[in-house]
Amino acid sequence: MGINLDMIGKKTEAVPFTYNEDTVILYALGIGAGVDELDFVYEKNLKVFPTFAVIPFMPAFMTSMQKAEINLFALLHGEQKIILHQPIPARGTVYTASVIDSVYDKGDKGAVLNITIETRDEQGSLLFENKTVLVDRSAGNFGGERGPKTEPINPPEGKEPDFRAEYATSKDQAALYRLSGDKNPLHIEPEFAKKAGFDRPILHGLCSFGFAGRAIVHNLCGNDPAHLKSFGARFMNVVYPGEELITEGWKTEQEGRYIIRTTNREGRVILGNAEAEIA
Amino acid sequence: MGINLDMIGKKTEAVPFTYNEDTVILYALGIGAGVDELDFVYEKNLKVFPTFAVIPFMPAFMTSMQKAEINLFALLHGEQKIILHQPIPARGTVYTASVIDSVYDKGDKGAVLNITIETRDEQGSLLFENKTVLVDRSAGNFGGERGPKTEPINPPEGKEPDFRAEYATSKDQAALYRLSGDKNPLHIEPEFAKKAGFDRPILHGLCSFGFAGRAIVHNLCGNDPAHLKSFGARFMNVVYPGEELITEGWKTEQEGRYIIRTTNREGRVILGNAEAEIA
Repeated sequence: MGINLDMIGKKTEAVPFTYNEDTVILYALGIGAGVDELDFVYEKNLKVFPTFAVIPFMPAFMTSMQKAEINLFALLHGEQKIILHQPIPARGTVYTASVIDSVYDKGDKGAVLNITIETRDEQGSLLFENKTVLVDRSAGNFGGERGPKTEPINPPEGKEPDFRAEYATSKDQAALYRLSGDKNPLHIEPEFAKKAGFDRPILHGLCSFGFAGRAIVHNLCGNDPAHLKSFGARFMNVVYPGEELITEGWKTEQEGRYIIRTTNREGRVILGNAEAEIA
Repeated sequence: MGINLDMIGKKTEAVPFTYNEDTVILYALGIGAGVDELDFVYEKNLKVFPTFAVIPFMPAFMTSMQKAEINLFALLHGEQKIILHQPIPARGTVYTASVIDSVYDKGDKGAVLNITIETRDEQGSLLFENKTVLVDRSAGNFGGERGPKTEPINPPEGKEPDFRAEYATSKDQAALYRLSGDKNPLHIEPEFAKKAGFDRPILHGLCSFGFAGRAIVHNLCGNDPAHLKSFGARFMNVVYPGEELITEGWKTEQEGRYIIRTTNREGRVILGNAEAEIA
């Protein structure tokens, strides 16, 4: 068992992340925005996509992974959820700390880590949280608890979605997205991708997550990022740069809550078990 | 006459520019490179496009413009030439100083400024030079010299080019390119572009220059940037993001010297009076 269980419940030190309008625009271009969404790619009256919340956590996250002695080669990104408490500023220094909430033993499937990551502004005010689920495929059978079963979130059968957004990714999408911080060679180096069992480099899961969040902002938030309260999804299948991402949303009976699903052109589910809360 | 002639011949102080692989990759993506040109967009064994030489000069150049009291609204970028003395490193701090060599009086057409910009490494060794020709349309008729006539450089009539490269620009090309430093709103803001007399935002002249340089590296340098000794061109017509750029080259009788021309799909010349020297 490669995971250091002593880490559970211990919050890491807050790691600063300084960024500006260029950082925000580069991220927006990385998730496929362009001049047709000018407010998101031009520093004048710049709006910040809520999924930018996954960018400042990257350094703190890597620290956490190293301390927990996680086997990065056996690691799968299982789920991601962002919870927005305030609109994200277009520049500034933010501070991010993370804590491993629990580690569950899924036997031969591996160990599942539930991590909460908090990002605060310079005044200590909570800006946003990330909830990340990681699977270390090499670390199961350590005699731990199996953990609670999660409830599946599926679109209502036979019901047309309340919105549908089709976005193209470019063959260079991952090459651009990775400039926002995730330099894993899996997303750029053909040999590395082959060793990891893929035909060619795959798109970052969090890039697809950004495409879906962008669809939500434009279709459920009236282009106003402040209206998104939370968005969470499970990574179901990989995407190759150049594929299309089709994001659909279904209103639920709960006010402001939508079930979300992102598929590729062939209907393979990329992001499932997904929901968004809109204010 | 708005130009401060006292500036002629006085070299500015060297301005530092610190950059790394991300800066180089962002520039490469900005001039249309992608994963099909992996060595130019991946930090492992990263190659630097020679036209990156126009990036570190931007801060020094702006300083020079301000000191010369040039009317930026009446300014046209006339010509650009890069002269490479060494391969450009993939990261580091470089120092750039510029000098206005001459200002010529073209009467009602304005004043023409010839500027030389030198970039050196931390050891003081000359990496590359830029020769820039600017036209201040508002500053002619100041009683100055008209200057020498430049010799036209044209492709040989009726002769097929020795290479031809067709590159697409994306509708978001300028939005991406501007993250490399030139934030002129002319290239992103529709209202600003209209006030400047254009239908919509235009591509940076130096972005087209980069596309042409990229074509030269791949077609005349065997993908090795070190083989390009110089590349100069005159900006003839504007390009709108999304247009194609077709770069052609003709061998001359002079060893290693090629005449270059970049046109759009309709055959309008974008970069003319252009030549490249290959080692």
